[in-house]
Amino acid sequence: MTPIPASARPRQVDGLVNLSLAEVEALTRQVLVHHQLAPTHSDALTDIIVAAERDECASHGVYRLAGLVRTMNSGKVNLSATPHVRTDETSIVRVDADGGFSPLAFNMGAPELAKKAHRHGIAAMAINRCVHFTALWPEVEALADQGIVSLAMTPSHSWVAPAGGKRPLFGTNPFAFGWPRLHGNPYVFDFATSMVARGEVELHRQNGKPIPPGWALDPDGNPTTDASLAMAGALLTFGGHKGSALSTMIELLAGPLIGDLTSAESADFDGGAKAAPYHGELIIALSPDVFLGEAKSEYLQRAETLLADIVSQGARLPSQRRFEARERTVSDGVWLTRIQYDIIKTLI
Amino acid sequence: MTPIPASARPRQVDGLVNLSLAEVEALTRQVLVHHQLAPTHSDALTDIIVAAERDECASHGVYRLAGLVRTMNSGKVNLSATPHVRTDETSIVRVDADGGFSPLAFNMGAPELAKKAHRHGIAAMAINRCVHFTALWPEVEALADQGIVSLAMTPSHSWVAPAGGKRPLFGTNPFAFGWPRLHGNPYVFDFATSMVARGEVELHRQNGKPIPPGWALDPDGNPTTDASLAMAGALLTFGGHKGSALSTMIELLAGPLIGDLTSAESADFDGGAKAAPYHGELIIALSPDVFLGEAKSEYLQRAETLLADIVSQGARLPSQRRFEARERTVSDGVWLTRIQYDIIKTLI
Repeated sequence: MTPIPASARPRQVDGLVNLSLAEVEALTRQVLVHHQLAPTHSDALTDIIVAAERDECASHGVYRLAGLVRTMNSGKVNLSATPHVRTDETSIVRVDADGGFSPLAFNMGAPELAKKAHRHGIAAMAINRCVHFTALWPEVEALADQGIVSLAMTPSHSWVAPAGGKRPLFGTNPFAFGWPRLHGNPYVFDFATSMVARGEVELHRQNGKPIPPGWALDPDGNPTTDASLAMAGALLTFGGHKGSALSTMIELLAGPLIGDLTSAESADFDGGAKAAPYHGELIIALSPDVFLGEAKSEYLQRAETLLADIVSQGARLPSQRRFEARERTVSDGVWLTRIQYDIIKTLI
Repeated sequence: MTPIPASARPRQVDGLVNLSLAEVEALTRQVLVHHQLAPTHSDALTDIIVAAERDECASHGVYRLAGLVRTMNSGKVNLSATPHVRTDETSIVRVDADGGFSPLAFNMGAPELAKKAHRHGIAAMAINRCVHFTALWPEVEALADQGIVSLAMTPSHSWVAPAGGKRPLFGTNPFAFGWPRLHGNPYVFDFATSMVARGEVELHRQNGKPIPPGWALDPDGNPTTDASLAMAGALLTFGGHKGSALSTMIELLAGPLIGDLTSAESADFDGGAKAAPYHGELIIALSPDVFLGEAKSEYLQRAETLLADIVSQGARLPSQRRFEARERTVSDGVWLTRIQYDIIKTLI
């Protein structure tokens, strides 16, 4: 598709609308502010949505605006929350998100987390009482920009059955990792511990298509390839009992350990409002400066050798597609379907 | 099988030999000491091997003695290594294993790690220059006994291809997690990030059986069900690109971050000696006391609710089988095949 000159944007071609990233930003902020979200939160959420569109990571892009508006209108989120960052002499940073969306809470706590990691070598940030909205990769990337290695995890709503079980208990429980590289973009992954995203099953349902075996259980706890039964039943974890164990770990670490809700407790709190999950997030930050001291550049170079050995045998690094999209969209903008664009317009 | 009275042990029945745990301990220590392993190391390794037999976890039991003897005779391990524990004002405990086996290094560092976690909330232990010998579950269990939540990981030798790749690069890279429960045994998992253990493929090869699809690649990097080609090629990770990402994380965290070798570097160091991997291990320890303070018992109870919800729907907790075996073997002893027993006897 030929890039449209920035001067002529937004432009339509074949049922598609092209928006520059600046236009995505303006449109997103307009929707959020229109629904009474405080400017500080609107800015923080807009950054995430623009980053997702920039990386062609549609699952956290403007597609989410309709759900965000539903969450904002559900009464389940504090639209003018003031996150409160608490630190003490330990290696833990605590952010009470005050019932608001998570991105502002993360942004306010992250500098303290980086500072503690660079002082103690390892530190943790517990974000509590937040309404989750973001992929985790923007967070581990932001920390990698500060030279910090990090792991991030959060429960969600209980949609996923444990391996060998029958009923939803775990969230889709994403797990992310960021590693600052010597040059260029960090090594980053961010994946759900469920087999697939719930949206993926919903898409099959809408299109009347069966889902592959191994994705989900029906409401009786039996394996199913029927997308409707799967939506009423439970997703499965990736990787069988190993993925199920990881998902349990995420529930425990980013739930009870930090004094916050499990996915089942979050779903109870939601009470059918279909708002975004309300709960906590745990981020563990490690400083290569403290771990390695003068040996840092030698060992970061050895990490480069490992990553080069992955790529040289034809395998891809996890975020490669996003980083490639980033190169492209900064100049070419992003394409929404006309329908998508019109839906967003109805939210203003 | 009828338990044999302790007075009559070791006893043989149907080509099997029954040993009490005390007899396993004596036999194991005898083999290790006979091959010049220092008493401190012999004790630490014996504890691991007896714990594995007690839990019917054969892969780290007396079956390993032959390989240990090979490693001890390879010149690749310091039989009288003196691990050196270093601490400073950071949250990191460093143990230089001095080229010896890992269990003594862990035992010497663990109290410092627990102390730091209980002071700072989160702490890390880097064990360097160790010849790895142990499952990780005894370590996370030992920390759980101190009221510590922990994650443990280590590279191994490069036997596993990255998802989408063709050649061995990662180790079987185990990942373990321990969570102290309110009553009884901790919640513990410990799994290889490879699809299966290499020993599993070797067993198929010896029995002339094909391996299931998805386990391994042949030396040209193509999928194979031929166990011999798989042993000459590469294992695959569990869970496709997600398992591959986790395995990469373990390489980075327990390799370069702690100033130690990746699995590929460890295999280079081995140079065909077929000794146990020589490298590092990272353990992250978190203290529920510091994270939760007065709310600790409430939230540990919520964790119990989560775990009960797993069990109540017919799913099993990861270490259940081991804990059940433990109840049994303490009184009934363990059964080795006569052949296994005779092989061990040749090592003395």
